Amino acid sequence: MKVRVAVNGYGTIGKRVADAVRLQPDMELIGVSKTSPNYEAWSAVKKGIKLYVPESEAERFKQAGIPIAGTLEELFKQVDVIVDATPNGVGAEYKPKYVELKKKAIFQGGEKAEVAEVSFSALCNYDEALNKNYARVVSCNTTGMLRILCTINSKVASIVKARGVVIRRAADPKEVKRGPINSIVLDSVNVPSHHAKDVQTVFKGLDIITTAVVVPTTLMHVHSMNITLSSNVKREQVIDALKNTPRIVMVQSKKAGITSTAEAIEFVRDLGRYRNDMPEVLVFEDSVYVNGNELFLIYAVHQESIVVPENIDAIRAVMGLASAEESIKITNATLQIMKGSLIE
Amino acid sequence: MKVRVAVNGYGTIGKRVADAVRLQPDMELIGVSKTSPNYEAWSAVKKGIKLYVPESEAERFKQAGIPIAGTLEELFKQVDVIVDATPNGVGAEYKPKYVELKKKAIFQGGEKAEVAEVSFSALCNYDEALNKNYARVVSCNTTGMLRILCTINSKVASIVKARGVVIRRAADPKEVKRGPINSIVLDSVNVPSHHAKDVQTVFKGLDIITTAVVVPTTLMHVHSMNITLSSNVKREQVIDALKNTPRIVMVQSKKAGITSTAEAIEFVRDLGRYRNDMPEVLVFEDSVYVNGNELFLIYAVHQESIVVPENIDAIRAVMGLASAEESIKITNATLQIMKGSLIE
Repeated sequence: MKVRVAVNGYGTIGKRVADAVRLQPDMELIGVSKTSPNYEAWSAVKKGIKLYVPESEAERFKQAGIPIAGTLEELFKQVDVIVDATPNGVGAEYKPKYVELKKKAIFQGGEKAEVAEVSFSALCNYDEALNKNYARVVSCNTTGMLRILCTINSKVASIVKARGVVIRRAADPKEVKRGPINSIVLDSVNVPSHHAKDVQTVFKGLDIITTAVVVPTTLMHVHSMNITLSSNVKREQVIDALKNTPRIVMVQSKKAGITSTAEAIEFVRDLGRYRNDMPEVLVFEDSVYVNGNELFLIYAVHQESIVVPENIDAIRAVMGLASAEESIKITNATLQIMKGSLIE
Repeated sequence: MKVRVAVNGYGTIGKRVADAVRLQPDMELIGVSKTSPNYEAWSAVKKGIKLYVPESEAERFKQAGIPIAGTLEELFKQVDVIVDATPNGVGAEYKPKYVELKKKAIFQGGEKAEVAEVSFSALCNYDEALNKNYARVVSCNTTGMLRILCTINSKVASIVKARGVVIRRAADPKEVKRGPINSIVLDSVNVPSHHAKDVQTVFKGLDIITTAVVVPTTLMHVHSMNITLSSNVKREQVIDALKNTPRIVMVQSKKAGITSTAEAIEFVRDLGRYRNDMPEVLVFEDSVYVNGNELFLIYAVHQESIVVPENIDAIRAVMGLASAEESIKITNATLQIMKGSLIE
């Protein structure tokens, strides 16, 4: 019998998780919630996804001619697990409802860590989320950072400390009200930025300090990471480890002509990937530089899609459906997630 | 008797250096060179600056109705020192002419270090340039980095290593043919970026590794710098040292509402600064963070104007006109360069 899933919130993350759930052999998407009758609601309807709306909004959807299947509570009652993809902080407001209905829930990284029993990153701590009721998939930047850090730590050498700079995209492609347009904005001005603390919710006790700026782009985040290891390593060891890890892809910039986020996204557009998503962490292979026991690397994180496979794995973990290895394998196969080299 | 100065190249840097020379009590601007009869040539004419052009271009200037004072060679022959502000790499092509005419010259950071006898940063190595024939003022990013690094090294604690990330503006405000528009571009993909090597032309032997990306803004560069010191230091020591150093200003972000390059430039626009230039390094005070013997700070570098005071000091150094202290004092006073806090 398939696990019955609801997605609460059908925005950037929610719509992608909903699509991903529909591709899983062991899951069934019962429906999604939507609060405003906009183009994204229409896209759900056109794809045959059932829409559930707050009672107070039902009339607006009716007037807009968008068919609805019921109320949020009716949706929640039908399912085993709810993926909460509501805006930052709203998940915490919904939590009492999930508790009341005795439903498991997966929250997103925009929520505080305290909302869940465990913060989750599939390559790092899948097992900690097994059979829990509430898990929180860390944010896009943290997910990207953790995939890299956990891989280096477990396959190359243990990490003494990590020092990273996050260059954040300002807005998602669909957003029309965010900036900056012509500025580099410190986010935050205080050091460390919140990313370091968020990494520590999963990779406990790691000595990590991050800084972050926001820049006027929409395509991907970029991290410049400097990792001090417990021993000297060879560049080839690092590249081998990264190439053999799922959800990480390497690009040889000179060979591919890819030295930027724009070119990376154009490549996956050309491949015909749905929504030109890139849920893999993209490591610029030429940037991998080893200086004794210090490792430098630069990678890009697609903010819209990187957490989607982690949400699917989190569902399996809290439902106790599969081991980490099994779940990651199914998720990667169904979502056609690459590893190794972006081009060959 | 005043030192007679020519500025070869009247672009972003050249026009600013020319203006700055005119403000010095011990210098006289004889003229500037210009190769195309565009709006910048007109601005020189309107300001009463004499234009000298390559013989081959004289006819074009005549047709455009722009009065010229003579040829480049005629300009060079009249002066004691030439500030070469021609495009990257063109300075090296002019050098044989300067040598032939036995004229001292100041080159810019776009030239290779080998073009000159000494790479120059006033706060670091003024004395090395004394009475030399050829000095090279390092680039804007390197100038900003060196002001910070030399100050920390001499006033706080000696630097064991520096690890920096440069977030570069894509174009100057006047440029209409450069990008990116919506991308974060690695520059270069290889680590370290050239900035580390350029710092070492002045701060010899420093253990420094930098990475760099280009982002779609025009206002200022931003550096996120992580410095390991030879001993533990207090945050207050660092702030005191920076506040007491000329050409560095601190901004308290919360007090001023300045957390970005856009807000910083708007402030100096509001102050009525010519061309809204900010030749000081702008350190975000809230970003100064000390972790044992590690120092983190984030600062902004105004690419169009930061090297202007260094060009003026380089003239005095190669002409043997003044000591470092004297020159820096005169330059700061005439150019109204701030230190301490941006707002008080």
